[in-house]
Amino acid sequence: MDKQFEQQLAGLKEKLLLMASHAEAAVIRSVKALVRRDDELARRTKEEDNVIDTLEKEIDEDCLKLLAFKPAPLDLRMITMAMKIAHDLERVGDEATTISRRTIELGHEAPLRQAGSIPPLASTALEMLKDALDAFVGHDAEKALRVIPRDDTVDAMNKSLQKELAAWMTENPAAITRCLNLMVISKSLERVADHATNVAEMVVYLCEGRDIRHTNHENGAPSSSL
Amino acid sequence: MDKQFEQQLAGLKEKLLLMASHAEAAVIRSVKALVRRDDELARRTKEEDNVIDTLEKEIDEDCLKLLAFKPAPLDLRMITMAMKIAHDLERVGDEATTISRRTIELGHEAPLRQAGSIPPLASTALEMLKDALDAFVGHDAEKALRVIPRDDTVDAMNKSLQKELAAWMTENPAAITRCLNLMVISKSLERVADHATNVAEMVVYLCEGRDIRHTNHENGAPSSSL
Repeated sequence: MDKQFEQQLAGLKEKLLLMASHAEAAVIRSVKALVRRDDELARRTKEEDNVIDTLEKEIDEDCLKLLAFKPAPLDLRMITMAMKIAHDLERVGDEATTISRRTIELGHEAPLRQAGSIPPLASTALEMLKDALDAFVGHDAEKALRVIPRDDTVDAMNKSLQKELAAWMTENPAAITRCLNLMVISKSLERVADHATNVAEMVVYLCEGRDIRHTNHENGAPSSSL
Repeated sequence: MDKQFEQQLAGLKEKLLLMASHAEAAVIRSVKALVRRDDELARRTKEEDNVIDTLEKEIDEDCLKLLAFKPAPLDLRMITMAMKIAHDLERVGDEATTISRRTIELGHEAPLRQAGSIPPLASTALEMLKDALDAFVGHDAEKALRVIPRDDTVDAMNKSLQKELAAWMTENPAAITRCLNLMVISKSLERVADHATNVAEMVVYLCEGRDIRHTNHENGAPSSSL
């Protein structure tokens, strides 16, 4: 029984990492589609979102099975965190879908130079997500804690791009629709960073038993600011 | 032991309903602040978001304590769903904060007539949330299932307002900032409906053991469309 539990718990972690790699890949692909103006790639990203959705359902199911083993407190925490992390990853997949949908719309019109600000924003958000998941795998609270303040960097990058686009559309009404699409994409990437922050906070909770959600971190900004 | 468990489980449900009433009240207040152009009310809504955040943490803590009782499968499902519902409610609170922040910005400028489309959107989303929570309390899968297709109505209301605002800003560049603020508010309310849909889907799962997330419901639209 114990061995079976251990095996299933190990399987859960593996599935979570598989889901994470799909979610990361989806965001990377959606941004690549934007940069290359590649409709086909954007469409594929949208279609592949159901793989991520299915993994979330499977993970939830696996967690319920594991909870039925009546696990010890530390494993309990791990299993409930896995459910939450899966939910955040599913939302990351949704953001990739949103980016892809907007990319397809943008592909029908002349490119905007402000799109150049998207790849660095995406890289920073994706690095946060990668580090948060590495911290999860390595059970590394220190690493997780270093992810959290970087959310402010992404917030600032998004805010600055939103401002720039608002100014640009005021002077170029013909660019309004395109600017709105880019605004949504920028916001989506800022949300990816929010999800990475959530994962990092959960890793801290998992390792140290401290619930640091909604507390003022180093730079004092809540993770859900717009 | 069993009696203690039952008491704590009843306490959990009560706390979840308390949290729900706070989240609903926050959205109602934020929309009231918008309609009345009442900065003070908007500011208060933002400040009170920490009550909701604290309740989420408490509920998570309570759920872990309940899971330590090694509950039966049906209670297991109930407890893990409570964690998820609490997370959705916390996000509803965040949306109220976003609406309040944008309302404060809007208060500094002349009103836009399109703001009149917000209260009906808010009512529909809030009714969905109320019904989903009633379905939870009454363990009523039928009622929960009736919530889900209404998400399409809210999506359509939001989409139509987004379109109207985009057209309006093209003709009135001076109104761009205000239109952007209203767009964010409209999208926030559409997200409240998404959270209501999530809660409804969880109630169905709780009652029937069917996981209907990410399946095409009656009208075929996924709940996370933008």
